[in-house]
Amino acid sequence: MNNIPASQVAHIADPERKSGRIGTCPDPQGLLRQEPRLRLDVLDRLHNCSVLSAAQFDKDLLGELAKLAAHLQLRRCPVSKALEDKIMAAAFFEPSTRTRLSFESAMLSVGGKTISVADAKTTGVAKGESLRDIGQMFNSYADLVVVRHTEQSAIAEMSEYLRIPLINGGNGSDEHPTQALADWYALLKWRPEIAFGAIPERFRLNIGIIGTPGNMRTVKSFLTLALLFHENINHITIFSEMADPLGDDLRELCDNSPIGINFSRDLQGNLEYLDVIYMNAIAFLGDGYRFYSEDFQLSAASRLKADTVILHPLARGPELAADLDDTPHNLYFNQADGAVWVRQALLLAIFGRVRGTVPDDLLI
Amino acid sequence: MNNIPASQVAHIADPERKSGRIGTCPDPQGLLRQEPRLRLDVLDRLHNCSVLSAAQFDKDLLGELAKLAAHLQLRRCPVSKALEDKIMAAAFFEPSTRTRLSFESAMLSVGGKTISVADAKTTGVAKGESLRDIGQMFNSYADLVVVRHTEQSAIAEMSEYLRIPLINGGNGSDEHPTQALADWYALLKWRPEIAFGAIPERFRLNIGIIGTPGNMRTVKSFLTLALLFHENINHITIFSEMADPLGDDLRELCDNSPIGINFSRDLQGNLEYLDVIYMNAIAFLGDGYRFYSEDFQLSAASRLKADTVILHPLARGPELAADLDDTPHNLYFNQADGAVWVRQALLLAIFGRVRGTVPDDLLI
Amino acid sequence: MNNIPASQVAHIADPERKSGRIGTCPDPQGLLRQEPRLRLDVLDRLHNCSVLSAAQFDKDLLGELAKLAAHLQLRRCPVSKALEDKIMAAAFFEPSTRTRLSFESAMLSVGGKTISVADAKTTGVAKGESLRDIGQMFNSYADLVVVRHTEQSAIAEMSEYLRIPLINGGNGSDEHPTQALADWYALLKWRPEIAFGAIPERFRLNIGIIGTPGNMRTVKSFLTLALLFHENINHITIFSEMADPLGDDLRELCDNSPIGINFSRDLQGNLEYLDVIYMNAIAFLGDGYRFYSEDFQLSAASRLKADTVILHPLARGPELAADLDDTPHNLYFNQADGAVWVRQALLLAIFGRVRGTVPDDLLI
Repeated sequence: MNNIPASQVAHIADPERKSGRIGTCPDPQGLLRQEPRLRLDVLDRLHNCSVLSAAQFDKDLLGELAKLAAHLQLRRCPVSKALEDKIMAAAFFEPSTRTRLSFESAMLSVGGKTISVADAKTTGVAKGESLRDIGQMFNSYADLVVVRHTEQSAIAEMSEYLRIPLINGGNGSDEHPTQALADWYALLKWRPEIAFGAIPERFRLNIGIIGTPGNMRTVKSFLTLALLFHENINHITIFSEMADPLGDDLRELCDNSPIGINFSRDLQGNLEYLDVIYMNAIAFLGDGYRFYSEDFQLSAASRLKADTVILHPLARGPELAADLDDTPHNLYFNQADGAVWVRQALLLAIFGRVRGTVPDDLLI
Repeated sequence: MNNIPASQVAHIADPERKSGRIGTCPDPQGLLRQEPRLRLDVLDRLHNCSVLSAAQFDKDLLGELAKLAAHLQLRRCPVSKALEDKIMAAAFFEPSTRTRLSFESAMLSVGGKTISVADAKTTGVAKGESLRDIGQMFNSYADLVVVRHTEQSAIAEMSEYLRIPLINGGNGSDEHPTQALADWYALLKWRPEIAFGAIPERFRLNIGIIGTPGNMRTVKSFLTLALLFHENINHITIFSEMADPLGDDLRELCDNSPIGINFSRDLQGNLEYLDVIYMNAIAFLGDGYRFYSEDFQLSAASRLKADTVILHPLARGPELAADLDDTPHNLYFNQADGAVWVRQALLLAIFGRVRGTVPDDLLI
Repeated sequence: MNNIPASQVAHIADPERKSGRIGTCPDPQGLLRQEPRLRLDVLDRLHNCSVLSAAQFDKDLLGELAKLAAHLQLRRCPVSKALEDKIMAAAFFEPSTRTRLSFESAMLSVGGKTISVADAKTTGVAKGESLRDIGQMFNSYADLVVVRHTEQSAIAEMSEYLRIPLINGGNGSDEHPTQALADWYALLKWRPEIAFGAIPERFRLNIGIIGTPGNMRTVKSFLTLALLFHENINHITIFSEMADPLGDDLRELCDNSPIGINFSRDLQGNLEYLDVIYMNAIAFLGDGYRFYSEDFQLSAASRLKADTVILHPLARGPELAADLDDTPHNLYFNQADGAVWVRQALLLAIFGRVRGTVPDDLLI
């Protein structure tokens, strides 16, 4: 491809292709079949709240957020001026194009404005300024701040003087709650009955998680939300090269869950039992890569069940082969796409603007 | 704090706490008690003007700008579309999160749009392009440009071909005029009679400045504005480790001022006489740090008068201890907060949009 | 200049000076004299199209785009909300202040919104993410993406999964089509008869191009558009130190053109024959700089014809002396200025919003 001049690349953005999608793209309408109306009392629990952890969400709140996102994606709400008096600060002390652009796009789409720090090297943090002082600064400049940081402690430190809501956009190895909202928005569109129905026992989901929840933030937040749907999940298998992949906090949560949770290093041997596979860019510790890297990779050649879907927060490495993109296993592109809608829903709820934006006949 | 997971941090942005502030937060209403109406003829002197130096401001202009900022802070003016046809370029060739985000937030709040250079390394400047050519470029892209640069000469160079107003956002060791506007907006809210009254002789202010006005831009701009209020300032003491802390330009200004100005290295011994202390992140030269660093630090243990207020443009270093934050001495957080309002006022005045934005009955 | 404090620089943005321009600034009205109305059927050929190469444009399309840009520059179209529901992503994996800010300014001016990557080091690309995956990401975040990249192959790679229009903002040594649109917008304002008339044979243009079209993207795109106007161009001389300055693609295009094209290393000896000179920041290969650098420089002392105009995409190096700025030879500042208008025109056409923005009586 290296030497194809631009003049020889097809240059029409085909309107047909625009509606065509790659992989599995479930209709958001599915989420609204049982009860299209939103429970405003549930969504209002987010009003003026910070979003720091997936543990803040229960089944009701996650369900209503997903339904609001579905209404937005189906363009049923005139949002273009909903937050026109609000400024969101995107404070990305750890660079992240996907998460930053996704939040900025979401905020702009609902009429808000954005100010951004894309790189910590351009900030006082690089000169040793405390995050507490930086939090104090954002009180004056913005109405909400999204923070991404390499350190787990950053969110607590920055919250100390903060009087505006903060959204945790990923803090070290701790949490990435809005990524988990995007993950579950994709899964609930794919199988609305996970949140809004009762799956017959023998069809309950078997979920495989490749990674180490105890020190991978997206995996931790995903697993935390998974536990909410214990009635419709049969088993969760965690594939990790670590001896203790959960850590203390999660182990307690998991121990108290009725879901069967077990651990394995044999991903390939278990593939045929999994309905959902959650992957991440694999960061191996110690000798892990040498021993396990190929075992933990998926491709079109992997022995997946026909209807298994794969989630991945992207960006991906070699663990997820591109030859899966054009298969029905690919729910990861839809997951990325849905992130913008679920973040719009979250922003509207935090600013208390669901009423006034969503048509009244869609509210309970 | 290092190991508190996000799920265990209080996650509600308390609406009560939102109205609660840290430190001294004087009511902007105080500025408007004597004469709430704005003198449009005075503010119009800024129309189409560049703001390069604190020396451009006289007592009238500074007073009217502070009053306009107070009206904006009290939300008495419908500003949300005031500058909707204007684009501000933030050209930060020296990175500065606070100043850049503050200007962007101000511009967005009055309805304008922004384009930004957050880092010189992404610009032609890094490749040796002249600032004159870059100034010419901004003529086409924006209606106003805010410039921050490491070199004092940058403002003059960039102005050469510029046909749109330029705001000096800090040029090397020279000036930072809008920081000084924020400093004095805080002080005038705290004691409106400085600008709008006559303080009885024995209560006139004693101001201490820690730093070297001759080569610290914020200190230089602050001192320049201080001289405007000579009727209500008794004495200014400059605490610096330098033999000649003023330099030629400022010495002439100071020599011509009726304010008594003296120099000292004994901050701690003079604290009990000071009503206002202006600090900066201290940049010591030569052996300064070894000899003076502890002498020039303030903390809750410092022997301050009960009603002394401290200003600091932030970000801070060890010179200003965090245990002062929760005391009435802390005017520095209010100073940072006010910067956004005084910059909104400045933008409205430069674009000649005070009339049309401020209700007519608030104009003279 | 180094030591002039800001307080001593003239600080008024002179309203007179604001209308005064440097160099040659032809009236956009000239483009509209023959037929002010726009051919909507021609402009609609860009609807939903990507712009990857200058080779996509024919004489009609370039002419109508230039006329639309002229209407916009003359403020005859109320554009301020034309694209208010659209988001443009500026994805600059190779930093470029001019092109990025120019596109952002254009998009904001027609009412759109922007999200930006100013530096590849803050992106997943730096971590090895494929451009195909990044293209897929932009489908969800934006309605159009402008890409700048160091590699020629980037545009093709990023297009693979893209369902929104892409504008090539410069890909390696390949193309920079919107720069060429800006180049020709300046030339057509200067001599509208190039596109809309027949120049008598003896006055047809002689164009000199300093640089190597085969491996300089702006030169390649400029030359590609030049070939469209073969009826009014007599000769094109390419001044380059390379043995084969065209490369295969361009040689074929040039061989099929009726325009006489020749090569020379003697710029200074040919200056008196040239009506238009296109320069670029010269990147010499091998020993080129040692042998040719002075030969390829222009200054006020160069023996130019009185009415010769110089184009340069800027930023410039020593090849273009600043003493030419204040002469009528300087069309390069006008060229930079026009870039914003022609990009606004392009955005309106791609989004199919010419109708609805341009008053109906200006449409055919």
